[in-house]
Amino acid sequence: MTADATTGGPGLVVGIDIGGTKTAAAVVGLDGTLAHRVEAPTPARAGADAILDTAARLVAEAAERAGAADGPGSVGVGSAGAFDDHGVVVHATDHLAGWLGTDVAGGLRARLGVPVAVENDVHAAALGEHWAGGAPERFLFVAVGTGLGGAVVSDGSVLRGASGMAGSVGHVRIPTLRHRVCSCGGADHLEAFASGPGIELSYAEATGRGLGLREIARQAAAGDTVAARVIREAAELLGESLASAVVTIDPGLVLIGGGVSGLGTGLTAPLAERLHADLRPPFAGVRVELARTGADAALLGAGRLGRELLEPPPRG
Amino acid sequence: MTADATTGGPGLVVGIDIGGTKTAAAVVGLDGTLAHRVEAPTPARAGADAILDTAARLVAEAAERAGAADGPGSVGVGSAGAFDDHGVVVHATDHLAGWLGTDVAGGLRARLGVPVAVENDVHAAALGEHWAGGAPERFLFVAVGTGLGGAVVSDGSVLRGASGMAGSVGHVRIPTLRHRVCSCGGADHLEAFASGPGIELSYAEATGRGLGLREIARQAAAGDTVAARVIREAAELLGESLASAVVTIDPGLVLIGGGVSGLGTGLTAPLAERLHADLRPPFAGVRVELARTGADAALLGAGRLGRELLEPPPRG
Repeated sequence: MTADATTGGPGLVVGIDIGGTKTAAAVVGLDGTLAHRVEAPTPARAGADAILDTAARLVAEAAERAGAADGPGSVGVGSAGAFDDHGVVVHATDHLAGWLGTDVAGGLRARLGVPVAVENDVHAAALGEHWAGGAPERFLFVAVGTGLGGAVVSDGSVLRGASGMAGSVGHVRIPTLRHRVCSCGGADHLEAFASGPGIELSYAEATGRGLGLREIARQAAAGDTVAARVIREAAELLGESLASAVVTIDPGLVLIGGGVSGLGTGLTAPLAERLHADLRPPFAGVRVELARTGADAALLGAGRLGRELLEPPPRG
Repeated sequence: MTADATTGGPGLVVGIDIGGTKTAAAVVGLDGTLAHRVEAPTPARAGADAILDTAARLVAEAAERAGAADGPGSVGVGSAGAFDDHGVVVHATDHLAGWLGTDVAGGLRARLGVPVAVENDVHAAALGEHWAGGAPERFLFVAVGTGLGGAVVSDGSVLRGASGMAGSVGHVRIPTLRHRVCSCGGADHLEAFASGPGIELSYAEATGRGLGLREIARQAAAGDTVAARVIREAAELLGESLASAVVTIDPGLVLIGGGVSGLGTGLTAPLAERLHADLRPPFAGVRVELARTGADAALLGAGRLGRELLEPPPRG
């Protein structure tokens, strides 16, 4: 199967990343590289069938570009939501209308006629970091972006959890006087403060100016002390709160991904400092690093899942 | 091997529980029952060799009582401390003098001439709850006793962690105005408040009276509102803090064991109420239950580890 891994044929695998705003698909090579990437807006308000139609169309497109007019050999999906073992959505926010209860694996299987594996997008991203980004067998992945998600990787596998949402480090209440409602409806959850929108809101509260995260980072670099402070405070809240996850799973490494990780050490340095401050041996040595596969992490992990349908991994 | 499982011979397995004050050993049957239990004070200040001598002597005694003069077929150990894959202590508090660096598996193998498996005692207790106590494939075990430890069970196995101390839910800083130093040296860790000694200290601070936990519980049952309050507050701190562990590993079930779990629903009811208050779907449905195997949990889990040396479990 090696020869046709990216050039078409039954060994060809396509990964899909279904997000709240866009859906992407790409051929995922054996070596953890992407090719023939295509994307389209997610029809988030049009219902589950429309979302699956779009995903299936992108798969066919990516496969065709790779010279596989008959489609791929298998498909892996990373998507918003929590999934059961059969690829059915068992928990979802309202970002994707009608997503709850959707049989994503079955729906795509019916449309494409090939095996389909489905995983939560942040879980898929963690798998992508492990497979293609050089992350070790064990780490805590934290995706700081529009939301604040995460994944626990142990023995090279993602811990799924009772409801498929293990690693949800953002949905825990933090002690604060600045009350905010979380995207999930919870009160004062970490995500409401330590996420892209959370940092933007903090800046707006402090200055009355509504800037995007990228601009706040630019201001901070240019010497704006308020911009620098709101970023640092979000990072410190993360570090303080992640201490609980670290003592619970003893990961040895915390890997920071997601769009906000573009802030680089401006995010990870205060995060690590605060995290280490409250920890004692043997936890105080936990490392904090930036993820490496960037915005492609979920696509890569999805591809890995699809590949495992063709070649089950050796038992460890 | 079934026939001689508790009556002597090469299929006989002995479990050991090495604690800070006493060491216990027992023959562990195929059905998750204990027989021929013996115990002795742990020579905690006399060094590692003395501790291992005592453990080996108890193993021989238990085996002899079971009619196996030649000793058991294998031995499993649950012990204070964190262990590497070879059964060497890689992290320890100063409860057991000279424990750090001790090759517990090798030392017992040399003394007994049989295969030996070693695990942290709280991890062993969680395994015992799973194997002999009817706990499911996935849960968070929390041992509330002199200390506050825990274990993450997933797919029926205990998550070990980078330093062998995953599940250490007690060693995280909590927001409080009543500053206390934790047994690990950390400031304001949960263990310093939500443990047997933590509750006793809270009662002493409130009343000036130094009562043991059992007596505080008796007073609470007799209508002493201060006694009832210090127990409830410790339980609420536990519930509040465990929310982080729940969103991180999504366990579906939190199982409360350890000596303080003898408080029963006086502990678990306020714990569950506070835990659920801050959680949203899909985590809000996490169950809180009392562990079932009591003080024998670590011995049972140790026996299970020893048994796996004779009969490796089928791959799942």
